[in-house]
Amino acid sequence: MERTEIGELGEFGLIGRLTKDLTHQQPSTLRGVGDDAAVLDPMGKRMVVSTDLLCEGIHFDLSYVPLKHLGYKAVVVNLSDICAMNAVPTQVVVGLGLSNRFSVEAAEELYEGIRLACEVYKVDLVGGDTTATTSGLTLGITAMGWVEPDVVVGRDGAGDGDLLVVSGDLGAAYMGLQILEREKEVYQAAPTAQPELDDFAYLLERQLKPEARVDVIREIADLKLKPTSMIDISDGLASEVMHLGTSSGVGIKVYEDKLPIDGKVYDTAREFNLDPTLCMLSGGEDYELLFTIRQEDFEKVRNHPKLTVIGHAVAAPDAFTMVTKGGTEVPLQAQGWDGLRNPQEGPQTD
Amino acid sequence: MERTEIGELGEFGLIGRLTKDLTHQQPSTLRGVGDDAAVLDPMGKRMVVSTDLLCEGIHFDLSYVPLKHLGYKAVVVNLSDICAMNAVPTQVVVGLGLSNRFSVEAAEELYEGIRLACEVYKVDLVGGDTTATTSGLTLGITAMGWVEPDVVVGRDGAGDGDLLVVSGDLGAAYMGLQILEREKEVYQAAPTAQPELDDFAYLLERQLKPEARVDVIREIADLKLKPTSMIDISDGLASEVMHLGTSSGVGIKVYEDKLPIDGKVYDTAREFNLDPTLCMLSGGEDYELLFTIRQEDFEKVRNHPKLTVIGHAVAAPDAFTMVTKGGTEVPLQAQGWDGLRNPQEGPQTD
Repeated sequence: MERTEIGELGEFGLIGRLTKDLTHQQPSTLRGVGDDAAVLDPMGKRMVVSTDLLCEGIHFDLSYVPLKHLGYKAVVVNLSDICAMNAVPTQVVVGLGLSNRFSVEAAEELYEGIRLACEVYKVDLVGGDTTATTSGLTLGITAMGWVEPDVVVGRDGAGDGDLLVVSGDLGAAYMGLQILEREKEVYQAAPTAQPELDDFAYLLERQLKPEARVDVIREIADLKLKPTSMIDISDGLASEVMHLGTSSGVGIKVYEDKLPIDGKVYDTAREFNLDPTLCMLSGGEDYELLFTIRQEDFEKVRNHPKLTVIGHAVAAPDAFTMVTKGGTEVPLQAQGWDGLRNPQEGPQTD
Repeated sequence: MERTEIGELGEFGLIGRLTKDLTHQQPSTLRGVGDDAAVLDPMGKRMVVSTDLLCEGIHFDLSYVPLKHLGYKAVVVNLSDICAMNAVPTQVVVGLGLSNRFSVEAAEELYEGIRLACEVYKVDLVGGDTTATTSGLTLGITAMGWVEPDVVVGRDGAGDGDLLVVSGDLGAAYMGLQILEREKEVYQAAPTAQPELDDFAYLLERQLKPEARVDVIREIADLKLKPTSMIDISDGLASEVMHLGTSSGVGIKVYEDKLPIDGKVYDTAREFNLDPTLCMLSGGEDYELLFTIRQEDFEKVRNHPKLTVIGHAVAAPDAFTMVTKGGTEVPLQAQGWDGLRNPQEGPQTD
């Protein structure tokens, strides 16, 4: 493998190399990389903007996350925040901090993932900053989207009796992380052992290459559905349920038997002696959308292949409970990843 | 001094404490901190957006930069990029990464500076991300502004014969850094020595508390002046002259005897055995605005207290020269700070 020191190119040389052939797909992008700032055309819409800071050793472990995947995921996680406002993401700006441990080729690999995500989601990379760090890799990503004024949905609009809906399935990303950590231990004990990962493709993909549910935002529009509140699941279902309820001033009741889980996730959780429900509630990093709808909209989501009704709002604020498969109602507990409390334990984003 | 560990509050607790009482001053801010993303109303204007990543040990040295000043400066540097598009900044989002070396009180002090800058510039802090790092302090700031479509100015519009104009004076921030570094050495040699800083108030203020020239953007509007190209001076005049010329496809000739310098900067440079002109050309971090105007607009800037004509564009691309006080024409050399090449040597932003 070729290794070019970043110092050989300098800041502007590296930026030039990383951003060459960058193209735009959004009509709202008037001016991208290469000036003091990008220029965007709102085209009559409202703007939605969100930012994330991702730090090596806290949010990712490069010993099992390839740089390209990291770049992809870092963008997607931010796009997911834009989706969570019921908006379609259109632009990102990327701040990239690299220590001298990283070569130009490493920066390019990371950027390849960033660009792939932009391509897949038709999002334009319109600006950035590239700099040195004294140690480790840091990514600061800000995502933007445009939305019609009456379409934007916050966390705060859920009302008593509204139905709670989740997209996709839950817990897979967390189980993917368990697999990676087990393989890392195996590798450290016996570096020549072949990793056994084929069986876990779905779980690993959900962990390493999560997707933002732009498709769900589009379907919600097609269904002429206006959610009353919405959030994306980064810290785990339980934690997000509480955010939604607290912001809206309602309680929420979730039904364990309704929670959507992939069969492989269920089996792997059991294999790891983990409670599958706990994985769904607290695993996090699913980047699915969690939202509430009015009861009269139930027919629009009933039997929808991507959407599951898992509970409903109740008038009692701060009453967050789960009705178990056994029929008992227990308090929901948020055990979301908290990067500030347990920096060693796992990823955290918001 | 009280010290509260960040882990005691957790991520959401810290965010709550840092963002309590946050108010908005911009009519374009519809929704700020507290949801997945902020919501902004373009009000018929174009959007300008810029991002910066600032890392401890590369862009700042906390042994002589107080946290409050750092927060202030980090915001201002980004606002300056918005000004450089001939736009007025209106919103920022802030990513904050802290190692466990930092207490809640330290985070609050930093945020105090961020909030002060927002207050001074009537800019709304509309979003952020707060997280742990394995070491050091990282700030990722994205600034936004709104501007009438025909007002925005890029780097690429300078034409042959256009006059080159700079706001304020040059070299002061660099000399302020020299003072701070000298005092740091004195302190390390004799920790009880009293720092001698009173004499250098202007230089230190320019280094520690630079300002974005929003006032100049407003005066340009009042003068009904439309610059043909514009950039802000972060890396040093010479480097920015070349950026402007290269983007516009013209050469630029600068006159040494026109370069604006403060008397104290001149004297201090001489005291340090530094060439005052070199400090102006390569010092950087002035955050003044550098722009070109058509010759017929000369009367609008003539004798303007904040603006100085220092040169003009020439038809020969890549011909960047300075006519010295002695009348000789010498090539301009960009020796701007480059954080990637010389991480030890000084700050770098773009």
